[in-house]
Amino acid sequence: MYSSYDVIVVGAGHAGCEAANAAASMGSKVLLITMNMQTIAQMSCNPAMGGVAKGQIVREIDALGGLSGIISDKSMIQFRMLNRSKGPAMWSPRCQSDRNVFAWEWRKALEENKNVDFWQDSVNEVVVKDGRVTGVKTNLGVEFFAKAVVLTNGTFLNGQMFIGEKVFGGGRTAERSSTGLTEQLIQLGFESGRMKTGTPPRVDGRSLNYTLMEEQLGDENPGKFSYLNTPTLTKQRSCWITYTNQAVHDELKTGFDKSPMFTGRIKGLGPRYCPSVEDKINRFADKDRHQIFVEPEGWDTVEVYVNGFSTSLPETVQYNALRKIQGFENVRMFRPGYAVEYDFFPPTQLKPTLETQLVANLFFAGQINGTTGYEEAACQGLMAGINAHRNSNEEAEFTIKRSEGYIGVLIDDLITKGTEEPYRMFTSRAEYRTLLRQDNADLRLTEKGYAIGLASQERYDSMVKKRNGVAELTEAIRLAKIKPESINEFLESKGSAPLREKSSLYTLLKRPEIDQVDVINILKSIPEMPSGVGEEIIEQTVIEIKYEDYLNREKQNAEKLDKWENLSINSNFDYDQLKALSFEGKEKLKRLRPSTIGQASRISGVSPSDVSILLVYMGR
Amino acid sequence: MYSSYDVIVVGAGHAGCEAANAAASMGSKVLLITMNMQTIAQMSCNPAMGGVAKGQIVREIDALGGLSGIISDKSMIQFRMLNRSKGPAMWSPRCQSDRNVFAWEWRKALEENKNVDFWQDSVNEVVVKDGRVTGVKTNLGVEFFAKAVVLTNGTFLNGQMFIGEKVFGGGRTAERSSTGLTEQLIQLGFESGRMKTGTPPRVDGRSLNYTLMEEQLGDENPGKFSYLNTPTLTKQRSCWITYTNQAVHDELKTGFDKSPMFTGRIKGLGPRYCPSVEDKINRFADKDRHQIFVEPEGWDTVEVYVNGFSTSLPETVQYNALRKIQGFENVRMFRPGYAVEYDFFPPTQLKPTLETQLVANLFFAGQINGTTGYEEAACQGLMAGINAHRNSNEEAEFTIKRSEGYIGVLIDDLITKGTEEPYRMFTSRAEYRTLLRQDNADLRLTEKGYAIGLASQERYDSMVKKRNGVAELTEAIRLAKIKPESINEFLESKGSAPLREKSSLYTLLKRPEIDQVDVINILKSIPEMPSGVGEEIIEQTVIEIKYEDYLNREKQNAEKLDKWENLSINSNFDYDQLKALSFEGKEKLKRLRPSTIGQASRISGVSPSDVSILLVYMGR
Repeated sequence: MYSSYDVIVVGAGHAGCEAANAAASMGSKVLLITMNMQTIAQMSCNPAMGGVAKGQIVREIDALGGLSGIISDKSMIQFRMLNRSKGPAMWSPRCQSDRNVFAWEWRKALEENKNVDFWQDSVNEVVVKDGRVTGVKTNLGVEFFAKAVVLTNGTFLNGQMFIGEKVFGGGRTAERSSTGLTEQLIQLGFESGRMKTGTPPRVDGRSLNYTLMEEQLGDENPGKFSYLNTPTLTKQRSCWITYTNQAVHDELKTGFDKSPMFTGRIKGLGPRYCPSVEDKINRFADKDRHQIFVEPEGWDTVEVYVNGFSTSLPETVQYNALRKIQGFENVRMFRPGYAVEYDFFPPTQLKPTLETQLVANLFFAGQINGTTGYEEAACQGLMAGINAHRNSNEEAEFTIKRSEGYIGVLIDDLITKGTEEPYRMFTSRAEYRTLLRQDNADLRLTEKGYAIGLASQERYDSMVKKRNGVAELTEAIRLAKIKPESINEFLESKGSAPLREKSSLYTLLKRPEIDQVDVINILKSIPEMPSGVGEEIIEQTVIEIKYEDYLNREKQNAEKLDKWENLSINSNFDYDQLKALSFEGKEKLKRLRPSTIGQASRISGVSPSDVSILLVYMGR
Repeated sequence: MYSSYDVIVVGAGHAGCEAANAAASMGSKVLLITMNMQTIAQMSCNPAMGGVAKGQIVREIDALGGLSGIISDKSMIQFRMLNRSKGPAMWSPRCQSDRNVFAWEWRKALEENKNVDFWQDSVNEVVVKDGRVTGVKTNLGVEFFAKAVVLTNGTFLNGQMFIGEKVFGGGRTAERSSTGLTEQLIQLGFESGRMKTGTPPRVDGRSLNYTLMEEQLGDENPGKFSYLNTPTLTKQRSCWITYTNQAVHDELKTGFDKSPMFTGRIKGLGPRYCPSVEDKINRFADKDRHQIFVEPEGWDTVEVYVNGFSTSLPETVQYNALRKIQGFENVRMFRPGYAVEYDFFPPTQLKPTLETQLVANLFFAGQINGTTGYEEAACQGLMAGINAHRNSNEEAEFTIKRSEGYIGVLIDDLITKGTEEPYRMFTSRAEYRTLLRQDNADLRLTEKGYAIGLASQERYDSMVKKRNGVAELTEAIRLAKIKPESINEFLESKGSAPLREKSSLYTLLKRPEIDQVDVINILKSIPEMPSGVGEEIIEQTVIEIKYEDYLNREKQNAEKLDKWENLSINSNFDYDQLKALSFEGKEKLKRLRPSTIGQASRISGVSPSDVSILLVYMGR
């Protein structure tokens, strides 16, 4: 009954929205099917974007021409650059978002894309002919045709929600689950599994005593995500920090016999790095407190997200435990936390484009692939949307290498290693993390995004201008010599060795005791400095000069790793003796007992630094 | 586990929001329980407030201290005073609303009320002890205690949605229904029934050709609903008008064999005055076209509401028929229309306070009472909230007489006549409609609202100022004499008889050929005019003087009606001979065959004017 489409995207969360926008912006006629047009781009979990490694992903999405960065900028209520005290590779942008504004900005952006049509319904069948997807059938019995289909079903496939001993069908609170699709995909030959995730209770900010908590202000000069000219915040809302304590833990423990996690009713594995509070007090019994981030849900709402208190214990237990938290003595809950268990499809069934190996032109993106996190979902959606467009135009696949971006790391990890528990991005997952910084995602990726017709001319021009500026400034610095008399006083004040003769500025800048701000000041004072160079270019140039050596070292490490691929590990190897191994890495190694370093390196959760530690111990 | 409340309100639609706000503003500790905090005050049907008789209700709610007027003002995108060419009794304010802003403004207002707590859950049991409600139990298994409970379940009780031959459980698209409560209320002795309502498809405004439709602009000087100092619109969005035609009707007819209405699968009766389009072409087969209002859903969305095209025919039929409408040739649907059938409780089981007769302190408001319409729901919520508060404080009942407001008419109709089909307000339902105008709701009701502690001091002061101003101006006009030479030229220009001598201005103003604008001009020119009198006061005074006679006549009619209460009607009476009877009135009289005029007057749908026609025929 309706016209057929180039690309159908099923689901309108972070993955679905990016997929629809990418394919449509590149010229595909796209149909976005969502169960509820009022809940497009809902932030189901915490009202925040970015964070360590995740903020880098948002910057990469933006660099390629996706929208998550722009929409985060338009909806943020607080911005912080995390890890600013560490090296620039660790700097990670993160914002608190207004939950409603975020969703509405996404909807507006999609409505403004003339190639995006909408249909409110749920899909319960993908139509496949001769091993190739040709469309979908919906719950209303409508069949839509398309050259490619992207499934982004989130937690909705046979979703079941748990609170204590109670179980409800549903993909998100107060929303239905989606049924039928998993079963059909299994019939087509797909393997499926179960995962779980959870969310904390939402509480009434009017019932909290903030004077008993630590205020967490936004940055004094707030940054943003997009490389384009989006606005920065002129006012911000604060978050607050408090802690659990022994009394909270004791209350929580009273519910353990009714916990759907501990009683085995939830079979799916949950996200290790976003554990429920009951999981935390169970697994880390020696810790006497855990941090709680008290996050406002928007500019003008009293609803508050209790980050760090995800739980599926009975709601009375949740309530009694919350009241024992400092500042929460008189808390009123709006709704309890819950766990949700849902179907996923092990991502080893995918190609590097996120197309399924089994069915041509069928793509999976987001939690359906076993990942967790908005940013992880969004970047998969972007890549699936790009490749769905390219597939339906018989263009070559579009991928990103591990050395080019976290997006490359994420997809390579998923399709080669799979994942047993919800996969979350970390900087430690990247071999080349010094390279994959938040400040240079445009330099790494915008040209690629522009070449495929996704990144706009404006975005490309702005990147080229920055790139040229960095090159020009780098060259100027390479040529510059600095005289002892103009710098020694300063060097002494920093405890840095004075110069004895006119020296290379380039070399001087690398001194670790001279920080970013110092360098910028020095540069501003030298005659070789080109005029009119913006702060972004100076910062970028300085980072690249200062961290040049780290980068080279990491590249060498990566090459070394390749060499040790077949080095064998004794099956009785005592991992406990290696204190420096990450907690997760050690646990996985002890369980899976890889027989070679190559195998070890591909286990989800065993980081490159874990592998290095093994190599060091083995004398290599 | 939680503190107990004075009043629990179940449901957060128009009724629930007004109920919660009213009780809380008067000092009750209120818990508002909603299935989804993200959908508080959703406009489930069209994005508009007010209209004929309904706009008057919004003004009355506002006058009493409710919030519907203020929130409508904050969220409107277009305002029109309907029936401005008729007498002021018919003037009816109506606005198009931004669906999202409306919902969000309600939520903000409730959050700002320190006495309103929230809980996201669904209620499946009211707890009753010794014939008195003591609380509710929820789907999560939580029990909340309260002195009074207001149920505003809308279309959610055992809600079933129909599209063609497909049936889905649910109270609203993509939302769950609520189960268990009806069954429990029946066990308690309540009688229940089924009703149905429907909604049209939503379409993509980008796919419409507006050049083929008639533009409907907002008023040049847009008004508003609240008597308080809310802002007026400085820009507006247009609506558009188009029509069905024979080809549209023919397409729709192809689906009649699959219509859940015509095949008997929907048992509940639908709203007569908001019929589905299939109903319209079926019942009014001689009409060759029906009007369609094309209404934008907000400031910045392309979603469009196809008012007048409510349907539950199969979605392919909906689509094919839509495309035959002028301007809709290339329409893209976002989602099909559907019918929803739900439980209601005949309102004859209620007291004038909306408390149930069976269970003390249990109140029903909104669609659960068999009404339709946002405004009808909101005013019931307001009255139930007020009385729930007063009951729990052992204060006297608060009611509004039929002569004081449409709210009085509505509740009296419901509890004395009941209703067989969704009850909607009309000016014809009111005996005293000349009195119950949109311009004087504050003069009628604010004092009452203030006396019970709901209307604010500011609101009361503003009403008193207006009342005093009107009295002062009326007195001035009564005393004023006007000379022939200062007015005769004008009178002649209006075709009105010239004055022969100095005459009473008061009498002159009543001449029908002198309209409102003329009067205002005359008043401004006379020396007796008090200085500094605002337009609102002038307008009010003029209306009261000009329509004084109508009002008196209606009061006499009402007294007459009382006298004829027991006048008998022959059981074979031929109603068809009375051409002037309303369509609905005639149908009801023929079916129910009342034995007295009193009985006839209390049948839902038999209007006071129908009764007058009967009386005239019977020679009285």
